[in-house]
Order: sequence, then structure tokens, then C-alpha cells
Amino acid sequence: MSHDQFDAQGRLQHLLTLADLPRPTLLGLLDRAQQFHTQPGAAVPEYDLLAGATVVNLFFEASTRTRASFELAARRLGAQVLTLDMAFSSTNKGESLLDTLYTLESMNADLFVTRHQEPGVPETLAQHSRPFVHIINAGEAHVSHPTQGLLDALTIRQHKKNFEKLSVAIVGDIRHSRVTRSAVQALTVLGTQDIRFAGPAELLPDDLEGEKFTNMDKAIEGTDVIMMLRIQKERMQAGLIPDEREYSRRYGLNVTRLKLAKPDVLVMHPGPMNRGVEITSEVADGPHSVIREQVTNGVAVRMAVMATLMGK
Amino acid sequence: MSHDQFDAQGRLQHLLTLADLPRPTLLGLLDRAQQFHTQPGAAVPEYDLLAGATVVNLFFEASTRTRASFELAARRLGAQVLTLDMAFSSTNKGESLLDTLYTLESMNADLFVTRHQEPGVPETLAQHSRPFVHIINAGEAHVSHPTQGLLDALTIRQHKKNFEKLSVAIVGDIRHSRVTRSAVQALTVLGTQDIRFAGPAELLPDDLEGEKFTNMDKAIEGTDVIMMLRIQKERMQAGLIPDEREYSRRYGLNVTRLKLAKPDVLVMHPGPMNRGVEITSEVADGPHSVIREQVTNGVAVRMAVMATLMGK
Amino acid sequence: MSHDQFDAQGRLQHLLTLADLPRPTLLGLLDRAQQFHTQPGAAVPEYDLLAGATVVNLFFEASTRTRASFELAARRLGAQVLTLDMAFSSTNKGESLLDTLYTLESMNADLFVTRHQEPGVPETLAQHSRPFVHIINAGEAHVSHPTQGLLDALTIRQHKKNFEKLSVAIVGDIRHSRVTRSAVQALTVLGTQDIRFAGPAELLPDDLEGEKFTNMDKAIEGTDVIMMLRIQKERMQAGLIPDEREYSRRYGLNVTRLKLAKPDVLVMHPGPMNRGVEITSEVADGPHSVIREQVTNGVAVRMAVMATLMGK
Repeated sequence: MSHDQFDAQGRLQHLLTLADLPRPTLLGLLDRAQQFHTQPGAAVPEYDLLAGATVVNLFFEASTRTRASFELAARRLGAQVLTLDMAFSSTNKGESLLDTLYTLESMNADLFVTRHQEPGVPETLAQHSRPFVHIINAGEAHVSHPTQGLLDALTIRQHKKNFEKLSVAIVGDIRHSRVTRSAVQALTVLGTQDIRFAGPAELLPDDLEGEKFTNMDKAIEGTDVIMMLRIQKERMQAGLIPDEREYSRRYGLNVTRLKLAKPDVLVMHPGPMNRGVEITSEVADGPHSVIREQVTNGVAVRMAVMATLMGK
Repeated sequence: MSHDQFDAQGRLQHLLTLADLPRPTLLGLLDRAQQFHTQPGAAVPEYDLLAGATVVNLFFEASTRTRASFELAARRLGAQVLTLDMAFSSTNKGESLLDTLYTLESMNADLFVTRHQEPGVPETLAQHSRPFVHIINAGEAHVSHPTQGLLDALTIRQHKKNFEKLSVAIVGDIRHSRVTRSAVQALTVLGTQDIRFAGPAELLPDDLEGEKFTNMDKAIEGTDVIMMLRIQKERMQAGLIPDEREYSRRYGLNVTRLKLAKPDVLVMHPGPMNRGVEITSEVADGPHSVIREQVTNGVAVRMAVMATLMGK
Repeated sequence: MSHDQFDAQGRLQHLLTLADLPRPTLLGLLDRAQQFHTQPGAAVPEYDLLAGATVVNLFFEASTRTRASFELAARRLGAQVLTLDMAFSSTNKGESLLDTLYTLESMNADLFVTRHQEPGVPETLAQHSRPFVHIINAGEAHVSHPTQGLLDALTIRQHKKNFEKLSVAIVGDIRHSRVTRSAVQALTVLGTQDIRFAGPAELLPDDLEGEKFTNMDKAIEGTDVIMMLRIQKERMQAGLIPDEREYSRRYGLNVTRLKLAKPDVLVMHPGPMNRGVEITSEVADGPHSVIREQVTNGVAVRMAVMATLMGK
């Protein structure tokens, strides 16, 4: 599947998944992102790498923060950005996904950023788009969220020297988590071998390799990185997992539990957080947390991906 | 009515309708649009003709594609674009149409692009706006959609040498079609005499000259251009026309039927299409189709209209 | 409370309220706004004072015109603008107000424009934001709407020489009016002493100094400025005030009533107007009305506030 992302000359044309992404390609994206990284409060450079280009945000699933991140990334590169809230608008008239693509590429759109609750949409768009068009997967069902995986990898790299020796625990609703799948793919390419999953048995995955724990304490023991996942409250209502209080007691990250990990452990969360449920505010805002750095890196990674795909 | 569009010096101030538009004015707009035309995949030039200008999209009727086309056209000319989704927002507080106009022109808006399901709105805005303001009709009830008429004319001109000798068939819900009315006006100015309408009897118009057919096969026989219209499924539910299957059988364009037209016939559709209802995918994506070219020309035409109205 | 607005060097960091704003600061903002003022129809200069800056519109309460005014102000200064309609979007996932702030400032947002139906939100954001971030209150419950107060003051200053000797009547739902509170604060700083309030007894305020009238005629007698407020029809439905007809008879501004004021009285309204209820069209569009000038000044004032906060 992943070679669909490359054009005939072997250049990255789309970013659909991190699975099997060659290590030099992935490292190249991280290096580029590091160059685009701007510390909050510092002056944001204005680039013209994408001047004249049109970036379309085609979001079928609502997302304020991811949309904002892509929109700022594109604009800071000098692109025109068109944001279409597909959850409401075009489907009114029942235009098909592909006709929306054909219409917008006929308006000289160059790059589509898409998010959809169903699997396969980014790949479908990539298969049917004209040769000059680029697709970025900004969240695909439970399957893939590659720019999230890249920003997670970049954030870890800014703090840890060596991916090979890392122990990483991912905690929460692993089964439904595109964040997890993309993080695992990135870490695997970068050489990390010790990736552990923790969560209620019903939410552990069938399709992922790595040690699985229903006991969070055991999973995070001695880890360098803990990635907490957002728990969907709808899953509680469906009775799949315990209520908030019980969930928090068993799978929430708090200061006491954090001591089980290495002293220099990094705490990550893709946001938005349910404070007091999967993570306490003391941890989220504490010295181990790199959660806000992830957000800053998100913009940088998206700039790197856009510039790379557009050959700039 | 149409002389409302011109200012005291005879310059086009608004674009409300194509009815009675002088032939040189219409040809001038097409020539200008041709200059702005950019092949998909080619680099889009960035103009500064509208630098400092503010374009307001005042859409009372939802439209992803038309709004996107106008937004890109304005931005590629260097304008600031403000998009107001009037279907939801301002009417919350019950501000009248004219007060919305007065407010936005007091904020130095220069050009309003408006779409409304009721007739008369663009003209009302033009009558009450200050002398420095320009109004573009982006879709008015069943009455008028002048930029669509222009893009249809431009698309035909790119393929056919002579409008006078053309045979054009328009098929579908003619009665409720602003697309048809603007296309007929444009073609009439350009000298086309043989314009035929086909559709269920209930959907044929009272107010348009031209031969009318309830038999589509007869209508398209020997034509140079077939313009298919989008059928509103609501009209089926209302029982005004047959169901999808029957409609498709009688008024859908398929490969077999297409052979009745001239060998170099152009197939057009304003979009969004109901594939498999008024048109088969084989035809929509086939060699006669210029449907995607229409979309590309739409941006060019809107750039031409904006630049012309603003005196640039 | 108001000293929260200033940083350690005494520079205005946020604009949360006009209460106790030092007179030189307020006059400086008005002078700056006068420089940014552009007559409708004149060419709008494009500034690059905010080039590279990111302005986020964080509107929890819908508002087409105020959002448009801030958006145009920011863009005309060269900023990137990100508009988040918080009434619909992010709260979907239940992200807290502060996490939204932390996320967006981590994306290098510099300036937040916020509007909320609950009191305290702008101050909360100011207290928790990083040192490089600026907050502008664009409407806070019934409490404060400082840019409205500034634009009202600027509009009066363009017509009247002296604030000290002015008589100003404010008419309508004073109790729930943030517009009134900010106008009174601005006028008080500028030295106006004669500020009168008129409205139904239930809608007169407890917390504002100034003479109160239930008889509008007495209130506006001999005034230099009449500020009419928008009446919320919901209050009528709640039975708090008379119906439209009766309200209009007792508290509506018409031509007859206007003669009670000074011959050069200014008529103001923050918009959107209920024409025929709190004000007749004859007055709203008549020679005393400066209502459209208020809108033009609104953009200028917001440009001045943004440039000043950003230290430009």
C-alpha cells in the first residue's frame, strides 16, 4: 500500500501512512520540520515556498485543532488555504467524494488535507487525483494519522538521543487509535523495539505487535516515554469500559504512578485531554510533560510535509 | 433592468444578469477570462490587481463549489476575502439585508458576491449600495446565474469556432434553472439561434423561446452542444417527475444516446452531478465531456468579472 | 482588575476593559485609530505592521459583524487570521477553554480576540496566557465591550470638540448592556459628566452612576448625543418589557422625539438595529445619524488596539 505514496521518480507524492516509510524519508521529514520549528513567542518567519499554491482542507470529521494546525502551516508557507467543512456543506447536494476532488483540482488546487471517519478515503483520493495533486492524510478512521506520528517522533527526538533503546508505553483505547498506529509505525522505522500497550482488555488491539497489559503500572515501569490517549466518553456510555472514576483509577496517569517510569520520562498526549480522567492536571502541566511541545511540533511537521510533497 | 448594471459613464458596475448585455461587453469578459485561464497543474500566477480590495461572499444559499470558485478567484487577484455564511449567522440577530450591506460597505468592502434562493436580491443590493460598491450575482432563485452563463460560453468558445451556427440542447429541469436562463442569454448575445429544451412537460419553461421537447432523443439529434442539468431529487419526491430510474431512462445522457448528436458534440454539466441519473459516468468522464473544463473556466471568468468591475 | 491589562513595563498588554484606563492611553488609542481611519470608497492602505503575526478569533458567541470587523482589521495590518467558531467546533470534544488557549499559543498565535456570553473569560485568558500573548475582549456578557466603547468615543470626537460639556443619553436595555458599560467608562475617562439612562424600570441598572429615567423624553431633552441600544426581543417574550409597539411608543427614537435634543445631536446605535422598534428608519438613515460612521470607526479602532498591543 505504501508505495502509492511515491511517484515514478521515487519522490514522496502523498502522505497517506507511515507504514514502511523508508527511514531516510522519515528522517528527512523530521530534519526539515526541525528547521521550520519556531519557539512560541519567537517571530514566525514568513516563507514563500508555497506562493501561488492552493491548499484545500477537506475535513469530513470536525477538528478544530488539527485543522488550525494545517491551516497555519500552509499559510506560513505562503499558500492560499481553502477550508471546506464537508461535515455540513457539499454533501448537502450529494456530490460524491471523487467529484469534489475533480472539481477542486480543476480549480487548480494543489494539495488536499483530508480527515474522515471512514478508512480508505486518503488512498482513494490519491488513486484518482491528477499527477500534480498531493494528498495528506490528516486522520483516517482508526487506521492512520501520519502527521501525528511524525510530530510524536520529532518531540521524542528533541529529548532523547537514541530511538533504539527507548521503552515506550501507550495507554488507553489502543484498539480505536489512529494516533497509536502512526506512532508505532514511526517508532518502528526509527528502531524502537520496546513498545507496550496498556488499557482495558476490550480496548487492546488485535493487529499490533508489542507487549499488552491490562495493568497500567506494569506497562509503564521503567519507560522513557508514556503516551496517553484520549478516552472517548462514548465508549463509557456504551459500557465497553469502566466509568470515569474507575477508568482514572486504573488507567489515569497521576504523579504517583509516574514515579514507576524512568526519572526523565516524557509524558505525551495528542490532545484534546480529558483532564482528571486519563491524565491529571498535575502531570499534564508538570515537568515531564511535552504536550505543548507536541502542538508546536505539529505545525512544523505539517510545514515540512507540505513543502516536501510540493517539491520545495 | 439590465442598464442598472452600468454606471453613468457606461462602465459595467455590477453583474446582475446577462440579459441584453452588449455583445462587446460580453466578448470583453470572455477575452479577459481567457487571459486569466490557467491549466490545472500549471503554476497559478499571483496578481495584485485587487490588492487592498475587500471581497465579501454573502451567501444566503449554501454552495461549496461556487463559493470556493469565487473565493479562489478573488484571492488570486490579491483581494482580501471575507466569507459570511448568511444561512446561519447574521440572520440570528435579524439584521436586514440592507443593513448588512450598509454595515459591510462601511467597513470598506468593495465587492459583494451574493447568492440567494429568492429573486431580486442582487438588484436590491445594487440599487442601495454606495457608488464605489460592486455586486456580483452568484445565483438568484431560478432567475439568473450570470458567471455560470459566461463560463459556459467560454467553454464552448474554446472548442467551437462559431456561435451562430451552433445547435444547443439543454436537458432537464429547465423551468427552475437559473443556469439555463443565463446560458440562453449568453448564447443569444453571441448569435446562437438553435437552442432546444428537453425535459418532462412539467419542467419545461413558459418564459423561454426555443423549441421544446419531451422526447430527449429528438432534442439532441444533430446538436453541437448538450447541456445537462442537475435534477433535484426533491422534485421526484414531490411527484412532479418520474423516479430516478425512469428519469434516467427518459432524460439521462448515456453513450448510446450521445450518438444521436454530432460526432464532435460537447457535453456540459454545471455540477454537482447525480451520476447515474441525469448522466452516466461513462459520458461524464468520457471524451466529449468538458465538465471539468467548465470548472477551470469558472475561476477564470470570476477573475475577469471582478477585475473588470473594479476597473482593473 | 484593570491593571492586569498592563505588563511590568506599564505597556498595554491586553484590552479587557476601559474601566480606569489612563486618559493618555485612551487618547493614544483614539489618535492611532484616527490615523487608520479610511473613508468608505477610498483606497484601503495595506500595512505590514502585523506581518508574521497570527490573530485568532475565538468567538463563543455568534457575531457576524464584530467578527468581520476584527478579521478585516487584522488582515489590513498584514496578520494571518484564524477564525474558530467555538459555538460549534472545539467544544464538541470538550476541550477546556484554557487548553484551547494553551494549544493555540503553542501554535504561535500572538493575539486572541474573544467573545463570550459568560463574564470573566477575557480576564481568565489573560491570566493564564504566556507573556507574549495578547487578549482582546470583543464582548463579555453584560460586562464589557471595550472596542465598542472606543469606537463610540472616536465617533463622538470626530463631531464634538469637548467631552467635558457633553450631555449623553443612553436608551434601552441598560441593565444587560455591555455596550453601555464600555461607553460610560470611555466617556468618564474623557471627562463627560452628564450621562443619563432611559428605559423601562426593569431594565435600568443598579451598578451605574448617572441620572435614570423611565421617561425617554425627559432623558433626551437638550442632549448632544443619543445612544440607542438594541432591544432583545427575547426580553419581550419573557414579559420583562412591553411589546414592540408599546416599546417603540415609549422608548423608540423617531423624528418628533429627536427634536427634544440639541439641533446638532448625534444619533448612535451599536447595531444590528431593530428598525421600527427602538429606532425609525427616518432617524437611522437621517442627517443626525452617525451609525455607519461607527462601523467604519470600528475597524480603525480595532486596528489601533491590535497594533498597540503588539508594540507596533
